[in-house]
Parts: sequence; structure tokens; C-alpha cells
Amino acid sequence: MANSFLDSLTLVRQNTPLVQCLTNSVVMQFTANVLLAAGATPAMVDTPAESAEFAAVANGVLINAGTPSAEQYQGMTKAIEGARKAGTPWVLDPVAVGGLSERTKYAEGIVDKQPAAIRGNASEVVALAGLGAGGRGVDATDSVEAALEAAQLLAKRTGGVVAVSGAEDLIVSADRVTWLRSGDPMLQLVIGTGCSLGALTAAYLGATVDSDISAHDAVLAAHAHVGAAGQIAAQKASAPGSFAVAFIDALYDVDAQAVASLVDVREA
Amino acid sequence: MANSFLDSLTLVRQNTPLVQCLTNSVVMQFTANVLLAAGATPAMVDTPAESAEFAAVANGVLINAGTPSAEQYQGMTKAIEGARKAGTPWVLDPVAVGGLSERTKYAEGIVDKQPAAIRGNASEVVALAGLGAGGRGVDATDSVEAALEAAQLLAKRTGGVVAVSGAEDLIVSADRVTWLRSGDPMLQLVIGTGCSLGALTAAYLGATVDSDISAHDAVLAAHAHVGAAGQIAAQKASAPGSFAVAFIDALYDVDAQAVASLVDVREA
Amino acid sequence: MANSFLDSLTLVRQNTPLVQCLTNSVVMQFTANVLLAAGATPAMVDTPAESAEFAAVANGVLINAGTPSAEQYQGMTKAIEGARKAGTPWVLDPVAVGGLSERTKYAEGIVDKQPAAIRGNASEVVALAGLGAGGRGVDATDSVEAALEAAQLLAKRTGGVVAVSGAEDLIVSADRVTWLRSGDPMLQLVIGTGCSLGALTAAYLGATVDSDISAHDAVLAAHAHVGAAGQIAAQKASAPGSFAVAFIDALYDVDAQAVASLVDVREA
Repeated sequence: MANSFLDSLTLVRQNTPLVQCLTNSVVMQFTANVLLAAGATPAMVDTPAESAEFAAVANGVLINAGTPSAEQYQGMTKAIEGARKAGTPWVLDPVAVGGLSERTKYAEGIVDKQPAAIRGNASEVVALAGLGAGGRGVDATDSVEAALEAAQLLAKRTGGVVAVSGAEDLIVSADRVTWLRSGDPMLQLVIGTGCSLGALTAAYLGATVDSDISAHDAVLAAHAHVGAAGQIAAQKASAPGSFAVAFIDALYDVDAQAVASLVDVREA
Repeated sequence: MANSFLDSLTLVRQNTPLVQCLTNSVVMQFTANVLLAAGATPAMVDTPAESAEFAAVANGVLINAGTPSAEQYQGMTKAIEGARKAGTPWVLDPVAVGGLSERTKYAEGIVDKQPAAIRGNASEVVALAGLGAGGRGVDATDSVEAALEAAQLLAKRTGGVVAVSGAEDLIVSADRVTWLRSGDPMLQLVIGTGCSLGALTAAYLGATVDSDISAHDAVLAAHAHVGAAGQIAAQKASAPGSFAVAFIDALYDVDAQAVASLVDVREA
Repeated sequence: MANSFLDSLTLVRQNTPLVQCLTNSVVMQFTANVLLAAGATPAMVDTPAESAEFAAVANGVLINAGTPSAEQYQGMTKAIEGARKAGTPWVLDPVAVGGLSERTKYAEGIVDKQPAAIRGNASEVVALAGLGAGGRGVDATDSVEAALEAAQLLAKRTGGVVAVSGAEDLIVSADRVTWLRSGDPMLQLVIGTGCSLGALTAAYLGATVDSDISAHDAVLAAHAHVGAAGQIAAQKASAPGSFAVAFIDALYDVDAQAVASLVDVREA
């Protein structure tokens, strides 16, 4: 059945995966609330003194260098080491990579440390693959379609899943390309919906790691969960303040059947 | 009268205590909004260059090492010095102590600097007392009952009040043990409800320091205020996004009588 | 026509100015959501390695030293250099200047680097002008009227616009003084409404820089937009949690005519 990937939503709620987020200060609160509403447990342990230790007990790790202090860069490097040693899946969100030189260099340095998934917008994925110059701040200037080659290149290089967020989302692994139509444009007007999707991707990977659900399906399910919640929120709210509230509510309320009926999945 | 502790709510609103929060980046915004809604004034002055100076003008200080950068640790140490010199009550929230070694060492180093109150979950309080290993990230794995001995030990050692948050809250000082039944499970699904309770505890201590209300009653009242607001919010909302909004509203709207009628206080 | 300044709201929505915010951790999320709701694009690029580079592509820069780490101070200095070199307008929000010695010294050091606008409360503006001692944390203890001389002094010294927030707002440039009556007292109970107004001021300046709208009118319009949204929110909500949601909604929904009909502008 085409929507079997949705079983992972049930696993997230059953396993309440502990997700360690090394992420930017702008979205920490929202990311934590997204994880809690979705059924996961957040912990923003990001200092070099603690991040490796914690990555060994976490079920998933998010690395998002959105506002990277020197100390947080060190914390990220340590967390990745800790995650790899412990076999904890980690997710790379290359925020604004391409657009800014220091973080581009940093992301290029960690992309080969086997992230289980990469999640970004088209311009970030294109830039991370070395195929383009990046977007405008956190906004993409490339189309999702234009990022397909870059995503495939990165998927092969990392052995992980690469997800490109946009009007339609693109989920790519070495031998599979899936398109997901879901969500609502209003998601762009609430800060942190993209960044927290990176964290939720880590939650889904952590919750399904011992199941027969593939990493590709887990990443797809995380995106479908967020997209469906965006659609439900858009039915209830038409401005971004109340939309953000309705979005968190919907992440919590929505069940797998509702997600399946709201989103459109297409294997390419 | 059993609920005389509730007079402190009135004092918070009259005195608008200035609460200096050295807290983690995840909950800064929510903590500030909780303080404002409850009637206090927040100021997150946390750098070593300014924290001691500010602790002398603040009415209460919160120390919560949830995402502790090296610089913030220094700021905390300075703030505690400034608070003690000025006689400003300070509150220790030992987030994830026990679970992570560096912050455990730090918390053990400051616990003897006479915090007016300690507020944590059962596992954190047990670990801080040296009686156990801590929880899972920010989640408790010990029951509140199991933390009674640790709370009493810490209360005697510090001369302050120790509050253990859980299904029922436990408020302990050297010669008194109070159980508080209040709140709603949904509070666990909104990030920062626990951390902001630490800040509100500092607000209540600061607002009542020159009154005849005991520190024990002030800490109890802070917990009752939050618990009652959680109950009111749960009557209005059944998912965490709208619950968080209703919780802030209820902190602002609720009066002492309503708190008294909603919570259940039991001296042990 | 007295309300011609309101054309700048249309320009903000047309041009979606990219606003680089070097601001305090407490209000980053709220500031980003305010900018998005108003029609701008936020980017919190604040490290010394990236801030100058980004200031050259941003349309406006906000400098708000609310929780200033040593690294963020360096980032601010670099961002101002980058902004000046590129001709990007930058806004100074002197949070708690006067009340705390280190940030006062820092603000005094950058005030002569030609901020396009300064936005603060009365006590902050008075202290920045060297005419008084500052307020209580982030709260003003001077009246807006009492800050007129300080605002005029700073406007002449910087060549920019100086805005004093209060019960009525005061917008001052070298040869013009405008009073704005708008807003609602509930705005004071939501953290970040003042700080995000600084960011929105940068958005308005950035969006109108190539138009025939004066910087004075752009700053005035930013304040009117926020004030009107506060008034609309106050019609829908009577407690700060739901007020904050309604405020973001109103920033998004309100059009120039509605702003004009809600606020009261008076040239002095």
C-alpha cells in the first residue's frame, strides 16, 4: 500500500524519540513545541562539553547552523562524533548554505560524516552539492525541480536521504525519488516551520530505526505529517498568528489516516 | 486559613517584581511572557559583564543552566554573587542535572550558595542531592514521592525551599512538607512551562520578601498559580498550541479565589 | 495628505525587504514572526564571521544589544561596518541603555556610526543622549515628553530619525517632530513588541530607501503599523496570550486605510 510509510507516525507517538537539537536560537522554542506536539521529546543540548555525551543517549540529532556561535560549531562537531560512535541518526539542515561563506565551509566539512538525512530548500541543497550559489538568506531562489540532480548527488555521496522543501517536497535516496504534495503557503509566514521539520525528521528516523520502515519512508512521513498539519491549520486560520497555533494543534491531533488522505505522494 | 498563601498573588501584581532570568535559550521568550502575564517584569541579563550589577537591582534571580555556554556559566556565577551581596533571593533550576556531567558538576558547586528555592523534577532533585543518577534529558524517571528524602536533605542543607514538580508537586522546607495537586498533563506538551515556573518562583519570592508571607508559602503560591492556569487552559483547549495561548491568558486572568478553588493543598 | 506616509506599508509588502537582526535571544522568534506577518523577510545573521557579509545583501539591519554575548558584540560591530560600506540603513535599539554600564558604553560607541534610526523608550533615549540615568531594566521611568530634547539632540547628532516609544510615540528628525497616538497597553504584556518594532523600522527603511518617502515617514509608518495592529488585537483579545496571536494576525491583515483610520498623527 502506497501509504504504508505512515506507520512511522504511530511509532513516533509510541516511542517518544528523544531528539537532540543543535539549532539556531530563532527557532528553538518553536522546534521544541513541534516535537512535543508530534509525540517526540526535545533536548537542546548544544555545548561542546555536553553534546557528544548526549548524542549517545538521544534517538536522533539535528544539526542546524542557523545562528552558529564559535562554541556551537564546536558543539556540533562533538555531537556528530558522539552520534556516529553511538549509531544515532543525525540530520543536517544546511540553513543559508551557499549564501554565506563560513557556514558553507562548515557544512561542506560535515556533509561527508554520513548524515542519515539532509533537509533544506532547493538553493541550499544545490549549494551544498557544489552546483550553485545559494539563495537569499533563508529563502530559496532555485526551484525544487532544479535541485533534483543535486539531491541525487548528495544522496549517493552520503548514503542517506535528501529532502528538498518547496511548493512540492522532493525526497531522494540513492535509488528512489518521491514527490510529496502537501502543506500550505502560510507555512512560509511562520518562522521555524522548515527548521522544525529538520528536527521532526530526526524524530522519525530515531523512532523507526529498529523497525522495517526505511529511512526514506521515515523522512517522507515526517514531511507528510508537517504538510498535513499545515493543510488542517489553513482550514482554520487565514493569518499567520492563529495559523501557527492551529499548526501545533494539528501536529498533535492528526492521525495517520488523515495524513494519508490529505497529502499526495508520487514515486518518480 | 489554609489558602492564606494566596495573598502573595496579589503582592506579585502590586509589586511587579523585576526578575532577572539567566535561563536557556529555548524558553526565554515563553518565560518572559509567563512573567508578564502573571504580573512580574522579566529581564534576561545574563552576561558576566552585567549580571552581578543587575542582580543588585532585581527583586529575584533565576539560574537555569539549560543550554549553558561558557560565557553564561560565568554570568551565572556573577549573578549569584551579586544576588547574595544585595540580598536578592535566587532560585536554582537544576535542568537535566544528573543526566549530564558538566552541568551536574556546576549545579553541585552552586547549591551551597544559599538559593532561596530550588525547583526541578524528581530526577533532578534526587541527582542534585547526590541520591540518584538523573532522568532522561529533561524528563524525570523518578516519582515525586521518591524525591521527598532528597528534597528534605537539600532544604536542610540550603536553608531554602525545595519544590519538586510532577503529577503532584511537593514543596519542602526544613520543617514543612506540602503537597499540591493542580495542573494538567497538557502542561508537559508546552516547552518552558517548568522552566518558567522557576522564574515565577523567583517573582513570588521577590514580591513577598518584605511581607509576612513565608518563602515556603510564596513558592507554593507560584506553583498553585501555574497549576490553576493549566487547569483553566485545559477547559478551553485540547491541543498544545491553543493550550499554550489559553495558559498565558489564564495566568493573567485568574484571581486568588479562583486559584484557591482549583488547587488542592495538603500539609504532610 | 496627512497619511501619505502609509504608502510605505504597500512598499514593504511589495519589496519584502530582507532584514538582518542582531538582537537578543528573548525576542528572536517573535521578531521574525512580526517581520514575516508584516511582509518582510527576517535573517538573524549575527556572528562576526558572517554579519558584515550579510549586511551587504540585507535591505536593513537591526542592532539590539539586549542579551549581548562577547561574540555578538563583535558581530554587531562588523554588521554596522558592512551596512555602512554597502549603504544599508541600520537601526539602533538601545535596550536598557543607562540602566547597565557595559551596554551603555557600547551604545555610546556606535551611536555616531550614523544609524538611520534609533528606537527606544524614553529612559533609553534620554540615557543615550547623555541626559539621564536610564530606566528599570527594560522599563522606562521617564515620560515620552521628557525625552523630546534628547531625541532632538540625537537626531541632529546622527542625521537620522529618533523614535521614542510610549503611551504616545514621538518621531523626531533634525527638522520635524511628529506625535503618534496608537497602540494598546496590552502590547506591554507581550515580550518583544518593542524590540520587533525596531526590526520593523529597519524593514520600512529598507523598503522605502529608493522611493520618495522620507526616512521620517518610513519610521512613522512602522510605528503606525504596529500601533494599529495592537488596537485591532485589543478588540479581539483581552489577555496577553490571545492578544499576541491576534497582534500577529493583525499585522498581516491590516491595510493602509485601516491603519490610517486607527492611528492619530500630529505634527508638532
